[in-house]
Amino acid sequence: MYPSRVDITEVGTRDGLQAEQQFVPTERKIEFIAGFAAAGLRRIEATSFVSPRAVPQLADAAQVVAAAKTLGPTIAALVPNAKGAMRAVEADVDEMVVFISASESHSATNLNMSIDQAIAAVEPVAAIARDSGKVLRAAIAVAFGCPFEGDVPAATVSGIAGRLNSLGIGSLTLGDTTGMASPRHVETVCGKLFEDHPEMRLTLHFHNTRGLGLVNVMAGLKLGIDSYESAAAGLGGCPFAAGATGNICTEDLVYMLSELGIETGIDLDAMIGVAREMERYLGRALPGQLMRAGPRTRLHPVSAVRRAVG
Amino acid sequence: MYPSRVDITEVGTRDGLQAEQQFVPTERKIEFIAGFAAAGLRRIEATSFVSPRAVPQLADAAQVVAAAKTLGPTIAALVPNAKGAMRAVEADVDEMVVFISASESHSATNLNMSIDQAIAAVEPVAAIARDSGKVLRAAIAVAFGCPFEGDVPAATVSGIAGRLNSLGIGSLTLGDTTGMASPRHVETVCGKLFEDHPEMRLTLHFHNTRGLGLVNVMAGLKLGIDSYESAAAGLGGCPFAAGATGNICTEDLVYMLSELGIETGIDLDAMIGVAREMERYLGRALPGQLMRAGPRTRLHPVSAVRRAVG
Repeated sequence: MYPSRVDITEVGTRDGLQAEQQFVPTERKIEFIAGFAAAGLRRIEATSFVSPRAVPQLADAAQVVAAAKTLGPTIAALVPNAKGAMRAVEADVDEMVVFISASESHSATNLNMSIDQAIAAVEPVAAIARDSGKVLRAAIAVAFGCPFEGDVPAATVSGIAGRLNSLGIGSLTLGDTTGMASPRHVETVCGKLFEDHPEMRLTLHFHNTRGLGLVNVMAGLKLGIDSYESAAAGLGGCPFAAGATGNICTEDLVYMLSELGIETGIDLDAMIGVAREMERYLGRALPGQLMRAGPRTRLHPVSAVRRAVG
Repeated sequence: MYPSRVDITEVGTRDGLQAEQQFVPTERKIEFIAGFAAAGLRRIEATSFVSPRAVPQLADAAQVVAAAKTLGPTIAALVPNAKGAMRAVEADVDEMVVFISASESHSATNLNMSIDQAIAAVEPVAAIARDSGKVLRAAIAVAFGCPFEGDVPAATVSGIAGRLNSLGIGSLTLGDTTGMASPRHVETVCGKLFEDHPEMRLTLHFHNTRGLGLVNVMAGLKLGIDSYESAAAGLGGCPFAAGATGNICTEDLVYMLSELGIETGIDLDAMIGVAREMERYLGRALPGQLMRAGPRTRLHPVSAVRRAVG
């Protein structure tokens, strides 16, 4: 049975905008986040306290969090290390998210550390979270497949989850960083986690790189998982595939869930409005479908038809 | 349990090219169809014997069928009326497909007839099929929702199916003509058809207009349905939504099914090759994802990564 309600975390201004070539002005980012809040999103991963040299697109993390904090939703931010965590605490973020790669090659490329080093680096962040009373969550990248190594054993993902859990982290996002997941992987990896760490609260983060983003959400729903991350307009890219779509699209996800009778608390029309704003601002077609077609409930006058037989 | 094998009918040169502004030269259409055949497709809905005035893009139906017939796969074509059926028989097509709309307003707009008139018009076509020994199939348009009327009662679709069945038609395609289906509709409409017409062989035809195309295929697979229609590169449009995606994408469907361990007999790389050819020829980005990202099994050297944290 599907969950009756699903929580959606909007990651467009973090996972989406970090993949843009241009720096999106701080006030624009805040307008988008205000749009998410107005549409009913309760949790927003607003930015990342990563080195501004590594990701200049998010150099304004502190200002973005300061403004976003006034809007109501829980504001989360990625923190790659203790330095980032201190900046995040200073900015008074609600939740900090550390991330670990599930494969050594992705960890080396993405974090410049081995998996062991990356987990060791979480300890000081966990201490900072404790001392500051901030919620600490974790995300495991390439949890459903690595672009360098291929399949990642479910036991590896579960092992990392256990080590994070022993650091006091009870909420875990499984990231399909380059869109390699299929329902089979979702069942295997999540099944192993349920078995080994039934206490862990799971969130799934899919990319639509190979068209299976919402299909994988269906697989997660079938397992009873009630928390997903998505980006307005389907923002976000894939470093290996020019033109490939990015994160699953928030408004398309909201539409699918509503068609399944699953409550999200999000106003679809308002969400479509923000997605169109982002598309207009970025000046190129984004992958979201609902912002073009509208919901099925928006009917058309017969006069609108362009004659097409069959 | 999912079916172990699925039949895919390629409709790109019919449902896809009929939606193009330009007339695609006959020899190009035949090259595409040859590509489908080489990739392993066993059934191709190559064209439509509709009035060349109504759909000039398919005015070369007879030449396309004549050439396609030499390639091996079963060649099907839409026939809107007896005149079209006679042209189709003359061109020696393997299978003829009649279509009926499930809503009066769509029938009036699309066929210029009431549903009763459209079903009556099938009788002479059925006679032509009998006399010529051609297989006759039927498709029901807007079976999962009408862009003018909204939800279509499952009983209406089933009633039309029964009347087609009594004309000797045993194979039926349910068309989600403007991408209004969701898993709930698939279960309701197909469930009713199983109940009322267990002898009918069902094929599902989805459009990805609202991003749920492959999700709806999953719903069909869950019901044990093993026959689907799709278009290479996700070709095809929606008369109500500029820029909306069209048919579900053949190579993305093949990829999803292979990830589920379901056999299609289609070579994914060859199919991606044809899709890229179509995109190159049409000169604009088409919706297919696999032709950009490649299958999950195509790994990348670590050196290929563009540093992106998180």
